[in-house]
Amino acid sequence: MAILFMDKNADNIDRWLRELRANLAGHEIRQWPEEVGDRSEIEVAIVGLPERGELERYPNLKAILSTWAGVDRLMADGMVPRNVPLGRLVDGSLRADMTLFVLHWVLHFHREIHLYRELQAEARWQPLPYRETAERGVGIMGLGALGADAAEKLVGLGFAVAGWDAVAKDVAGVTSFVGANRLHDFLERTEILVSLLPLTPETEGILNKETLAALPRGACLVSCARGAHIVDEHLIAALDDGRIGAAALDAFRQEPLPADHPFWGHPRIFLTPHVAAKTNPRTAAQEIAEDVRRVLAGQPPRYPVDMKRGY
Amino acid sequence: MAILFMDKNADNIDRWLRELRANLAGHEIRQWPEEVGDRSEIEVAIVGLPERGELERYPNLKAILSTWAGVDRLMADGMVPRNVPLGRLVDGSLRADMTLFVLHWVLHFHREIHLYRELQAEARWQPLPYRETAERGVGIMGLGALGADAAEKLVGLGFAVAGWDAVAKDVAGVTSFVGANRLHDFLERTEILVSLLPLTPETEGILNKETLAALPRGACLVSCARGAHIVDEHLIAALDDGRIGAAALDAFRQEPLPADHPFWGHPRIFLTPHVAAKTNPRTAAQEIAEDVRRVLAGQPPRYPVDMKRGY
Repeated sequence: MAILFMDKNADNIDRWLRELRANLAGHEIRQWPEEVGDRSEIEVAIVGLPERGELERYPNLKAILSTWAGVDRLMADGMVPRNVPLGRLVDGSLRADMTLFVLHWVLHFHREIHLYRELQAEARWQPLPYRETAERGVGIMGLGALGADAAEKLVGLGFAVAGWDAVAKDVAGVTSFVGANRLHDFLERTEILVSLLPLTPETEGILNKETLAALPRGACLVSCARGAHIVDEHLIAALDDGRIGAAALDAFRQEPLPADHPFWGHPRIFLTPHVAAKTNPRTAAQEIAEDVRRVLAGQPPRYPVDMKRGY
Repeated sequence: MAILFMDKNADNIDRWLRELRANLAGHEIRQWPEEVGDRSEIEVAIVGLPERGELERYPNLKAILSTWAGVDRLMADGMVPRNVPLGRLVDGSLRADMTLFVLHWVLHFHREIHLYRELQAEARWQPLPYRETAERGVGIMGLGALGADAAEKLVGLGFAVAGWDAVAKDVAGVTSFVGANRLHDFLERTEILVSLLPLTPETEGILNKETLAALPRGACLVSCARGAHIVDEHLIAALDDGRIGAAALDAFRQEPLPADHPFWGHPRIFLTPHVAAKTNPRTAAQEIAEDVRRVLAGQPPRYPVDMKRGY
């Protein structure tokens, strides 16, 4: 029996194999496609981006484990069999990196560093009105493993933090808004909006002209989960007329972002190339190895994906 | 007997008087110069920037309390009598603001947001090499009330934090370097340098071509204490030849910074107009009132300035 590692486009497959083998000594780990061998021998598949249809061909698969926190790409037709348990990656290192990225942009917009940069370009010395953190409404969309950690840290820095999620989640110090009918109330009190939602049919395009207009005028956006949460042209329009003050974007509908996309040249858009939080094979392989051992012992992965919800 | 409030150029004197009176009910608080009256009745002077020589004329002064954390301007000849205890302001709100400002710039440079901004201007999608926080050397010069707090929070975020101070100070998780002969060792391991030093004859010009050259090539600077720590032309030269990667500057030798100063237009200088941490009269008046009560009860202020060291 064996474990399969399958990723169509990881740039660090050797690193992954080395880390997985170090954490799963005594287990045979085969690299797809060269080392697949007899497919009936594969009990666990560790996948980044699998070949469409391929995973249907493993009759004894006990679980599929994702090397990504977001599994939206695996929800497309034919990517994973629906009757095999699928585990998401929850990795403390990735979470810590995401939280630092979020903290950075919340502090940046809270202290209006982007506006000081514009004043600097005109050699203008002009302190802007002082705002206390306790009166700055920060809102986190999505209180999963990533959102809850960022929310907690922002509470620790003194911000007035609210969270919005499809289901009730309790995070200390965070005002909770649950479900579609509370979204407007959540947005209305949010001056810095952070999106850490999973991408599902319900959240696709959730940052659109209606929701952006519900924010207080001049609110800032931090988007670091998936680009498809945003309706790009609605965001551009909201920035152009000042309803949105600025946006830090790390994820895009198409990556790399095409060179002619209007995001690149917009003065109030701060763009990073999907670097908010990368899976770190060193720590991630430890988490995945833990789930492999559970699965081989007949238990489910620790963070199972609900195929109906899509995350 | 009475308390005097004296500031030549505060823009919020009314706010100060209101807050001080609210926190010192039952005490008479006089505003300089209109309400000074009989100078022999003044027991405590609360000062921002006093008129030179004026404070020598109060025969019954028990203490002078500064509304600023940095008292370097009061150390100039004739500003305060040397035989009257002088108290610095240590205010939790100011400290929290300074720490957030420092965290912002450390995260900004750690995650190389300034370089991504340059790549964005060229519409280039190019993830930069990943660095873990635990391997990023952050160095804090000055482990006083402000420096120690920033250092602690940076340790909490996972950075490799060292501190340099003239005297030994113990901050949990911070590697400590003490005294002039350890400065070089401290700089050598510091990729992001934060200056929170007091301004004294020993620290004036401490960020100069020798010390900047001791940092690893490409190191970044966060200067948010006093502009006179920096030799301006040495910093420009170090930025121009790449020895220093970028600098966030909040304090300057002359403020407002003259419109023709080369800092304004330098692409790797991020300039804010002395807004890192402003004294908040609401919280500061509570701290000062506490010291006033101590002084009137015959005790020294809680944070006395050592006239020889100058802070």
